[in-house]
Amino acid sequence: MAASSSSSSSACDPQLDPNTTNVRPPPSGFLQKNNSLDEKGRIVGAFSQKQQLVSELGEREQRFRRTETDFSNLFARDLLPAKNGEEPTMQFLLEVVDILTNYIRKTFDRSTKVLDFHHPHQLLEGMEGFNLELSDQPESLEQILVDCRDTLKYGVRTGHPRFFNQLSTGLDIIGLAGEWLTSTANTNMFTYEIAPVFVLMEQLTLKKMREIIGWPNGEGDGLFSPGGAISNMYSVMIARYKYFPEVKTKGMSAAPRLVLFTSEHSHYSITKAGAALGFGKENVILLSTDERGRVIPADLEAKIIDAKQKGYVPLFVNATAGTTVYGAFDPINDIADICEKYNLWLHVDGAWGGGLLMSRRHRHKLSGVERANSVTWNPHKMMGVPLQCSAILVREKGILQGCNSMCAGYLFQPDKQYDVTYDTGDKAIQCGRHVDIFKFWLMWKAKGTVGFEQHIDRCLELSEYLYNKIKNRPGYEMVFQGEPQHTNVCFWYIPPSMRNMPDGEERRERLHKVAPKIKAMMMESGTTMVGYQPQGDKVNFFRMVISNHAATRSDIDFLIDEIERLGHDL
Amino acid sequence: MAASSSSSSSACDPQLDPNTTNVRPPPSGFLQKNNSLDEKGRIVGAFSQKQQLVSELGEREQRFRRTETDFSNLFARDLLPAKNGEEPTMQFLLEVVDILTNYIRKTFDRSTKVLDFHHPHQLLEGMEGFNLELSDQPESLEQILVDCRDTLKYGVRTGHPRFFNQLSTGLDIIGLAGEWLTSTANTNMFTYEIAPVFVLMEQLTLKKMREIIGWPNGEGDGLFSPGGAISNMYSVMIARYKYFPEVKTKGMSAAPRLVLFTSEHSHYSITKAGAALGFGKENVILLSTDERGRVIPADLEAKIIDAKQKGYVPLFVNATAGTTVYGAFDPINDIADICEKYNLWLHVDGAWGGGLLMSRRHRHKLSGVERANSVTWNPHKMMGVPLQCSAILVREKGILQGCNSMCAGYLFQPDKQYDVTYDTGDKAIQCGRHVDIFKFWLMWKAKGTVGFEQHIDRCLELSEYLYNKIKNRPGYEMVFQGEPQHTNVCFWYIPPSMRNMPDGEERRERLHKVAPKIKAMMMESGTTMVGYQPQGDKVNFFRMVISNHAATRSDIDFLIDEIERLGHDL
Repeated sequence: MAASSSSSSSACDPQLDPNTTNVRPPPSGFLQKNNSLDEKGRIVGAFSQKQQLVSELGEREQRFRRTETDFSNLFARDLLPAKNGEEPTMQFLLEVVDILTNYIRKTFDRSTKVLDFHHPHQLLEGMEGFNLELSDQPESLEQILVDCRDTLKYGVRTGHPRFFNQLSTGLDIIGLAGEWLTSTANTNMFTYEIAPVFVLMEQLTLKKMREIIGWPNGEGDGLFSPGGAISNMYSVMIARYKYFPEVKTKGMSAAPRLVLFTSEHSHYSITKAGAALGFGKENVILLSTDERGRVIPADLEAKIIDAKQKGYVPLFVNATAGTTVYGAFDPINDIADICEKYNLWLHVDGAWGGGLLMSRRHRHKLSGVERANSVTWNPHKMMGVPLQCSAILVREKGILQGCNSMCAGYLFQPDKQYDVTYDTGDKAIQCGRHVDIFKFWLMWKAKGTVGFEQHIDRCLELSEYLYNKIKNRPGYEMVFQGEPQHTNVCFWYIPPSMRNMPDGEERRERLHKVAPKIKAMMMESGTTMVGYQPQGDKVNFFRMVISNHAATRSDIDFLIDEIERLGHDL
Repeated sequence: MAASSSSSSSACDPQLDPNTTNVRPPPSGFLQKNNSLDEKGRIVGAFSQKQQLVSELGEREQRFRRTETDFSNLFARDLLPAKNGEEPTMQFLLEVVDILTNYIRKTFDRSTKVLDFHHPHQLLEGMEGFNLELSDQPESLEQILVDCRDTLKYGVRTGHPRFFNQLSTGLDIIGLAGEWLTSTANTNMFTYEIAPVFVLMEQLTLKKMREIIGWPNGEGDGLFSPGGAISNMYSVMIARYKYFPEVKTKGMSAAPRLVLFTSEHSHYSITKAGAALGFGKENVILLSTDERGRVIPADLEAKIIDAKQKGYVPLFVNATAGTTVYGAFDPINDIADICEKYNLWLHVDGAWGGGLLMSRRHRHKLSGVERANSVTWNPHKMMGVPLQCSAILVREKGILQGCNSMCAGYLFQPDKQYDVTYDTGDKAIQCGRHVDIFKFWLMWKAKGTVGFEQHIDRCLELSEYLYNKIKNRPGYEMVFQGEPQHTNVCFWYIPPSMRNMPDGEERRERLHKVAPKIKAMMMESGTTMVGYQPQGDKVNFFRMVISNHAATRSDIDFLIDEIERLGHDL
């Protein structure tokens, strides 16, 4: 049907309309940038074979800059749906895209800093006209464009090849395009009615993920949720519903004292879920780990027996596939044996490590994952998908619905003309649900399963490179011995002044301050970012993680050089 | 610092580089669109004063189309960070933007359909080469662009002036630009460290919202959460923490039997929260309402007394400001009196109606909201902000932190160089948290407080227009009498064949099927969309809501004509 096609030929195609793309004014000049003639000369030189053309364009830009789009006299009210709003809307959006594409270019440019750090009070006081305060009266679109530039200027380039600060790094261009489209579609996952394509994409993608986990025919259930913490919360909720469905109606008082088990190295969201859902933090039993941060199965069994002896009811075990700090993989098969023996729900938190299932070389680290009842897997971490993209996958079909449905008549009408089993909203604890699937689906299309595999293998090779580089290097101590299981490389940098200090409290105290000091200097100089933290009785150490597809060995070398440059005189 | 500025002058400024914007091939031709020479002729005609220029551009496009960007030979791996990836990256993103801007134009074009409906099985079987299945091998960027077009083609235009199906409608251009920037920045709200600007914007915006609620100096706390259901869940969690903080540690068994109160017309998320958090559905007591859907305060007091007599402990009352179906505002002051008398937590669910606080004409409907302990307010509904944007606002400072903090050392290090009270992550039940603030902040800047006020007043005027149009019109029955409080207009359309039927079961049964039938035909013809549902003992009726800034009286007229056209022969 012609009317609903998204055909791009129109009377105002921006490629052909001299009012739009081709002749819009440079964002410089009358806004805030210094785009001098010298600058233009350099640009022209870089493409000398097309020099004449460019000069012509330059002239036309000059001509149209004044007459066509002076954003200082335009306001939000002049944009669509305003009468004659199409032209300023297109001009404005293209101007924003120009800001964004320039940001993207610089993000991948190693001569650009990762951040331009300012303290909260500095930004709150206002930086060179960047005023965060909201006002009663509208501001011009010119000011809005300046605000967009400033927002990016004072932010952090999480896609920069030298940004290693979080588990989610990198800027995938296909994923980004997917997000731009998602924002433009601006819809909601709760019903097929208003998100037909996205709902089906979610269904097919979740099935594919379940196949990769190893559940027969990819059967089961799942949802994309707003992050791994919520995915983990789902797992606890459905475990409770499976064994004590009456809690949904009667509350926790209808169940005995239930206990959950998770590693002392696991993500805090399991304990947070325990607190939120009414189990209580002290009924989340922390399991001991070996020196590599992996759960000791015998400790799990001992603690189950202990809980039962106290009259408590063990319900749920979380096995972490890729811990946050060490990147450790709990031994899922051993844990699954124990869960089967005691009839407990087994959840695998693969928020960080789930991506390794895509790699034939590394998926053995999640051996046994197919025995889990539920799995958290965040494509926004190791698979490089833009934030947010987290899946909760469940082996038993229908249990999410059973656990969460409230059958709201105004949303999930049973008398629609289509198959309403595609209305997924009532499975969720959310009502409206953001479309997180499209960017991921589009990346999968564009990279193929093999593309994700290559990405993951490459990141793990890079972390191996880092590990091999520093494991025997003077001034470095590894937090745990042996090659890391994931891309996490945990280490202390020992400044020269401390290298001959005897072990003891004084050394510990000094060492505890080294990583924060280096990190603070790193942020001030803006050259790179890497995380640090203490863990158990271990004082602050660096945790290096690699999930950015832009990172190379030279960036690893740079990080090490930078740590040594900044930490040498501490 | 020059290196971190987001200056747009670069060696590859898309305005000056003939390889990029100006000369990229039209998305038609070798992709899927029919952009004939006739079409081009028409376009040129439309801007005849610049005809020569355009012709030159047309020629150049021809020339470069073949040699420069054949997306069929380009893949995701050729984009940044690939060597020489900048040029294809820019070409690809501009091509995507072209698809999106064309979609935006058509969204506001009333000659375009709202949707092109297909059943799930049809889309799953594959529509003219639109294959939703994921594969192992990568697809070309040409195919990815086709997929983007098809995704929009088979979706629903939620910004179309005749889309009235949900509480969230409309496509705000500033908000959209904000989302594009947010995706490009791709960061996470949990720490100031990696989201300095966004964290401050959130803080200032929440303060402004609290001022508008009427809390002294805008003091208090809050967060943007992934939707109103989660915001409401927060309110229940913090109410419990306030009165029974030991539940966090010991679980619900440490508290007596707690009960929550909410209207039978309230959103299902309150009951869902009760079930999820371990209270149990049956401990969420539903309150009776008057014929307009407003809570009867005396019923609340009676039910509190009844619960106490049974030995239960009343904890929490939800007052809805703008119910989902009727748009009713519960009498907050009367409810607040009762909450004070019995020392209960008062939450106001203003997910839908909170926006009216921005209007001097309508904010009296939330009179007493300043007495609430917590408020849910979704700018993504009545204020036209793109999805998702929902705030939970709390009067008592520090209680969110107390309730939810787990103090994860690897994320919320106390020894950072900046004021770590700006690290907001530990207040949330999420770990990673999507940046929902920027689009809202940018819209506020661009429209001013007065712009939101105008938007809201306009939507309410439109609904008044609809109400006046149909209240005495033959073939219409209002579900409740009197002018609606919000933009919700609830009505039955009675086809001519039923107008003389006596009241009774047969008529009820037939009437119950009218709205679903009309809605199905509407979707098949794609002309408009409006919701329907039953409520209590009332059979299916239409619920019209207006939050779209593109809607005008002519669209309301169109809806009524369309209902009559489709329903006339039922």
